[in-house]
Amino acid sequence: MAKGASLSGFPEWLPEERFVEQQAMDTLRSVFSLHGFQGIETRAVELGSSLLKKGETSKEIYLLSRLQEVGSENDTPVEDRMGLHFDLTVPLSRYVVEHSGDLVFPFKRWQMQKVWRGERPQEGRFREFTQADIDVVGNGQLPDHYEVELPLIMVEALEALRPLGCPKATVHANNRKLSEGFYRAIGLTDIEGVLRTIDKIDKIGPDEVVRELKETCSANDTQAQACLALAQITATSGRQLRESFDQLCASVEVTAANEHYALAMEGIATLEKIVDGAAAIRPGAVIADLKIARGLDYYTGSVYETFLDGAASLGSICSGGRYDNLATQGSHTYPGVGLSIGLSRLVSHMLHVSGAHANRQSPASVLVAVWDEAHRAQSDAIARALRTRGIATDVAPAAQKIGKQIRHADRLGIPYVWFPAFEGQPEEVKNIVTGEQIEADVASWLPEEQYATQHVVLD
Amino acid sequence: MAKGASLSGFPEWLPEERFVEQQAMDTLRSVFSLHGFQGIETRAVELGSSLLKKGETSKEIYLLSRLQEVGSENDTPVEDRMGLHFDLTVPLSRYVVEHSGDLVFPFKRWQMQKVWRGERPQEGRFREFTQADIDVVGNGQLPDHYEVELPLIMVEALEALRPLGCPKATVHANNRKLSEGFYRAIGLTDIEGVLRTIDKIDKIGPDEVVRELKETCSANDTQAQACLALAQITATSGRQLRESFDQLCASVEVTAANEHYALAMEGIATLEKIVDGAAAIRPGAVIADLKIARGLDYYTGSVYETFLDGAASLGSICSGGRYDNLATQGSHTYPGVGLSIGLSRLVSHMLHVSGAHANRQSPASVLVAVWDEAHRAQSDAIARALRTRGIATDVAPAAQKIGKQIRHADRLGIPYVWFPAFEGQPEEVKNIVTGEQIEADVASWLPEEQYATQHVVLD
Repeated sequence: MAKGASLSGFPEWLPEERFVEQQAMDTLRSVFSLHGFQGIETRAVELGSSLLKKGETSKEIYLLSRLQEVGSENDTPVEDRMGLHFDLTVPLSRYVVEHSGDLVFPFKRWQMQKVWRGERPQEGRFREFTQADIDVVGNGQLPDHYEVELPLIMVEALEALRPLGCPKATVHANNRKLSEGFYRAIGLTDIEGVLRTIDKIDKIGPDEVVRELKETCSANDTQAQACLALAQITATSGRQLRESFDQLCASVEVTAANEHYALAMEGIATLEKIVDGAAAIRPGAVIADLKIARGLDYYTGSVYETFLDGAASLGSICSGGRYDNLATQGSHTYPGVGLSIGLSRLVSHMLHVSGAHANRQSPASVLVAVWDEAHRAQSDAIARALRTRGIATDVAPAAQKIGKQIRHADRLGIPYVWFPAFEGQPEEVKNIVTGEQIEADVASWLPEEQYATQHVVLD
Repeated sequence: MAKGASLSGFPEWLPEERFVEQQAMDTLRSVFSLHGFQGIETRAVELGSSLLKKGETSKEIYLLSRLQEVGSENDTPVEDRMGLHFDLTVPLSRYVVEHSGDLVFPFKRWQMQKVWRGERPQEGRFREFTQADIDVVGNGQLPDHYEVELPLIMVEALEALRPLGCPKATVHANNRKLSEGFYRAIGLTDIEGVLRTIDKIDKIGPDEVVRELKETCSANDTQAQACLALAQITATSGRQLRESFDQLCASVEVTAANEHYALAMEGIATLEKIVDGAAAIRPGAVIADLKIARGLDYYTGSVYETFLDGAASLGSICSGGRYDNLATQGSHTYPGVGLSIGLSRLVSHMLHVSGAHANRQSPASVLVAVWDEAHRAQSDAIARALRTRGIATDVAPAAQKIGKQIRHADRLGIPYVWFPAFEGQPEEVKNIVTGEQIEADVASWLPEEQYATQHVVLD
């Protein structure tokens, strides 16, 4: 992060860092497009009523008020005020309902935008960051093969970021129906409470989870231990998943006769498809991990979190799931499934742990020297000619001593300095990295390949 | 604009419109990079004290408050609250001061981001829109050749947008020193008042300008008429500019002996350079137009506005100027010059007047058909093979009747439907535009050039 950023939680990159983020965004866009996703952008603001859907007032939202209204903004109820979006899923739902007549369903879209969370400044978390999302939204219904495909596309996208410093990614998948069916089958009813507690397992540890389940979710010790046992199941194949689950059910005497068993089986079936489907194409990329709960309340089926090798402290950098009831129009629903990359956090890791940075600060390959200000037009003409041929070119800011002009190129990382013809001297170009200086013609000269572009390198 | 957008002033595009905006942004980025500009992004929020610099409280700013603070947000003075940036120049100034140690000066940067203006909803103006800016910022001083170069780079950038539906652009340039020197020379002192009135000339007409100058800027009739005469000067060459100006000065008895004449001459000299410099490279692209005043108060030298052929009602779509005192650190200053394209307004014109749109809704060239859900893996494998070769490919959402699958491709504008080998039938691909169907091999087949990419077309 750029040093001295004056507002905590609002990261800003230096130009050579921003270049890495830009390359990452270009790469993601290209993968998403290759899979037929359409790019959209939604407005940064939504009405309070959308942002607070389901009555969640614990959400960390920034509300807006016009400067001219300061002092009277609270005359308007929060539901009718505008706030900055905190993710790209809620806006997508609103967009889909609003433009349903103009979209082709299932609607596959990618979206990369800033989102804002009105966290307390002292928490040291990002309050502004970029998310990169893909979602597929159906009209009325949505086939579950998308629950298999989407995490795989995200793995492919994260693979494509590895040359930019992204470590190997593994998607951990679970299913809300599986969890809910099991919890109900063993007699628990506060499903959201249990999920919320399980979600904290990596933070507070298994003992604390059991304690909290008993204390806040009315679980007895057997139930709490069963929830913990479920959360501790992981599997790399459908068969392994089903075996572990059957074993657990047997140990707590849950059988097919239990009225909630069918719901759990629905979840198992989808999760099996996901794990086996992924294993057939990209072994190890997606595993079943039954502790994955996800904080957001709108998920109704598959849920995903993604972890990077050797970067446990980052937490999940790509999360999502299936949501059947987020977008509705009267009784009509638009079920969706999607995942979201926390791009700012990921880029921060790429920059500061993997050491990704631009090989040079300026996109220019050439700096044209200026002998004196009266001859600046000559240097400008050379720059124009090189640019016409696609060679990014800058011109020295001032006709200083040539040593100073070369130093300027060097500070920007520009590899070539071009010397216009002058007092009988021919046109020449100097590679200031190797020191080689040759006669050159603007109409045909090309930079050597390794000096031709601004690109990302790792330390 | 997407129909039914539910918040006035917050434009949202449909996917095939957003594609045009995205292409425009890619094009601008590529032109700016070719000239050696570095891309940065600044946070969306600034402190009230930055946004309200110079005490301008008339600015249309959105302030933020955390949901948790509603009711107590006004305990904090506006200067210490966060607000959304209303342009990209104020954030650049703050960024440059904050990171001066990490930047190479003169710092050439491009930046494309959303900005927000807390306008009244009923005014029907954009309250959220994208700007595309270039600026050069010096450390302590900045050579004035950048005042010649920057408008020319913007003309080149706008030229590059013409295949996307942008009309021919002309930059109209003026100089604050010229105006101020002249106003003072004829005895006026409320320089900002006069500039503000002159700025309205196209809206309210010359008679009203004269009336207002007399009423609100303490001008007598001779002075008001002289201001109007100055505003009516245009020139396509330095010589023409100086002749018109000399003539006007003679008519109001302003001579070199006047203590303010030198300031006006400084402005004339820079403006001459701009007009002649531009004429030498791109005749007609930049003209002197002495009615250009610019609303923002931070300009100190050159000011620019840009108009499109046949789109007078759009107003200026690319404006800017030189600002010597915006970024300061103690007594140290970072003078800059820059221009900003009002990209949302321009894209709106490209879409709705020039009829620009994506040739198809989906980026995919191919939709792979699915014979039945049990064989989806076969279709997925074909899609993967095509994508590996860079061919954007989608797979049918459901194993419906083939006619329905073809209709799905058609609605998305996907030109090819791929039929996997099935019951002894070989692999085939059908161009659903021409109806041609051929045997094909995923390892070698290529779409015909005209069907190969999603791109922008004009109606």
